[in-house]
Amino acid sequence: MTQFSFSLNATDGKARQGVIQMPRGEIRTPAFMPVGTAATVKAMLPESVAATGADILLGNTYHLMLRPTAERIERLGGLHKFMNWYKPILTDSGGFQVMSLSSLRKMSEEGVTFKSHIDGSKHHLSPERSMEIQRMLGSDIVMCFDECTPFPAEEKVSLESMRMSMRWAERSRAAFGDRPGYALFGIQQGSIFSEQRAESAEKLKEIGFDGYAIGGLAVGEGQATMFDVLDYAPDMLPADKPRYLMGVGKPDDIVGAVARGIDMMDCVLPSRSGRTGQVFTRHGVVNIKNARHQDDPRPLDEECTCPACSNYSRAYLHHVFRAQEMISGMLLTWHNLHYYQELMQGMRDAIQENRFDAFQKTFFSQRTEGDIEPL
Amino acid sequence: MTQFSFSLNATDGKARQGVIQMPRGEIRTPAFMPVGTAATVKAMLPESVAATGADILLGNTYHLMLRPTAERIERLGGLHKFMNWYKPILTDSGGFQVMSLSSLRKMSEEGVTFKSHIDGSKHHLSPERSMEIQRMLGSDIVMCFDECTPFPAEEKVSLESMRMSMRWAERSRAAFGDRPGYALFGIQQGSIFSEQRAESAEKLKEIGFDGYAIGGLAVGEGQATMFDVLDYAPDMLPADKPRYLMGVGKPDDIVGAVARGIDMMDCVLPSRSGRTGQVFTRHGVVNIKNARHQDDPRPLDEECTCPACSNYSRAYLHHVFRAQEMISGMLLTWHNLHYYQELMQGMRDAIQENRFDAFQKTFFSQRTEGDIEPL
Repeated sequence: MTQFSFSLNATDGKARQGVIQMPRGEIRTPAFMPVGTAATVKAMLPESVAATGADILLGNTYHLMLRPTAERIERLGGLHKFMNWYKPILTDSGGFQVMSLSSLRKMSEEGVTFKSHIDGSKHHLSPERSMEIQRMLGSDIVMCFDECTPFPAEEKVSLESMRMSMRWAERSRAAFGDRPGYALFGIQQGSIFSEQRAESAEKLKEIGFDGYAIGGLAVGEGQATMFDVLDYAPDMLPADKPRYLMGVGKPDDIVGAVARGIDMMDCVLPSRSGRTGQVFTRHGVVNIKNARHQDDPRPLDEECTCPACSNYSRAYLHHVFRAQEMISGMLLTWHNLHYYQELMQGMRDAIQENRFDAFQKTFFSQRTEGDIEPL
Repeated sequence: MTQFSFSLNATDGKARQGVIQMPRGEIRTPAFMPVGTAATVKAMLPESVAATGADILLGNTYHLMLRPTAERIERLGGLHKFMNWYKPILTDSGGFQVMSLSSLRKMSEEGVTFKSHIDGSKHHLSPERSMEIQRMLGSDIVMCFDECTPFPAEEKVSLESMRMSMRWAERSRAAFGDRPGYALFGIQQGSIFSEQRAESAEKLKEIGFDGYAIGGLAVGEGQATMFDVLDYAPDMLPADKPRYLMGVGKPDDIVGAVARGIDMMDCVLPSRSGRTGQVFTRHGVVNIKNARHQDDPRPLDEECTCPACSNYSRAYLHHVFRAQEMISGMLLTWHNLHYYQELMQGMRDAIQENRFDAFQKTFFSQRTEGDIEPL
């Protein structure tokens, strides 16, 4: 049986190109993971998500534990079978969304109790319970239960939060146990404080994980501050394990993160934007609702091979968006996920061919600010 | 170039199995036409609609003339190219929806003026304008502009309405002109009055059309009354031309209509029901929102080969419906359209093999009233 392994094929500066091997399939890195919050990548069939080139999905523990519940998914044969996605799945720990979505939270060293945003029912999460839920879901890559330190945070507040997350990381590791073929990732915290990031990284390495995430970023600090942290934080993590930047991001965030040594990312942006009419292209963002698209016979991007660009004009996409037809969200989400995966493939190729600097130059020179009229 | 033609392969009692040949493809009859109101069959990609077995779609003139407008669709190369559906399209005349959706209508012998339900803008429809719009759309089968007589109607009111529709049918025929490869269908009116249905049929035959529709049914009269009319009305229409029953219906309506000599039908029911969680199966209706499906690992119908039944449990479909995920409408619409097309194929096969009575017996004996727990 294939166990979890990570190997690097090439590096170019700090950028890395590698592959994660797992029983359910391989994950080419740098990898972008579409988000399938409630056992579906919104507006997409899973075979369409796979067709965009995604090797792995992210599922949200918080949403799934509330509805349909982890117990039910386990009884039904696990999340892969439930949602008809048989490639790897990474689940978050639930901690981040408890803080952003639930109400009446009570946090202690032990864990957190909270009320469901769906029906107000009372629930509990702790390192042990999060590991149990992620096991019941059948998640391939399990994330430690941690506290995502809010931004901005006082240095002392961040330090206490980070140290609690490290104690929770130890408990997560112990609760996860030995599960061949499944992986557990630790999460570095420490906000924007390099000494705290270093302490967190040391503690995680001491515990030992299959991969290491950078948490506490993409929470409102802005790209410049995020890149400041990414200039040093990834280097603190083991070079021979995958590095996962959680919740990132826009296309330029992603390119900048890969340039700084990140191997994995996830974000709702391409799918959420697809539903709100914001389209990502090589040339920048197209807001399809703008009236100037209403007579435009051209595709979103003439070089794109996704179904939206192959078969439909901007005029059509504008029309179905304005008419609030479901096909609008379906096609624009497909395009955005296709664009993201093509971007990842472009970076993987560039790193392998030692031309990642040139790739970045082209990437940034093609882009225009604001709603664009490409080509 | 293939012109419009209709030929019968077999009859069984009054039921007929045939084929319409048109430049954009053939239509196997009895045919069910999914409705693509605003240049999309809601929640479906057109290639998925084709995969269910649909040979032809229906488009709504009223919706398309208001948004994105027929002029715009013509400039963009026609409705087929616009919506990426290259098989035949039938468009209605707009008359029915003007009466059901628009406001501030003013009807005269000349035609009808009305205000858009979208933005209140003023518009006009007449036999001549309806023919012009349907030509700009590039519709393969064009419907005469008529008044769908409301139900119930006094005999005198129905007679006057029918006779105006017949004058409009003459004007539609004249305005349509000679368009090789395109077809114009007349529409019989006369409510539930057999003498009026006969007079309408005679008038339509005198004018001469490529096909004949039965209008003014499925407007609240109930199945028994509709079948009473269908016991005689189709026989009044030419046997060598297709007969189209507009706006029908539930699966048992469809089987009963075919038994009475109908060749074509259309209805929003399978697609609309797909979005509201009502599922059609051989055994009857499944309401997927019911809690009893939440732990059910079985598909909607174990013998169905659609993507929803092949890949997902009822528990999953229940979950995504409750979570209001778009994949719910996507999968359930696909299933319903697949079911409808399979029903049509089953009837075509049965008629060809002279066993349509047995087909009907099996069809009705399998069905249960209310939300069912099949298998």
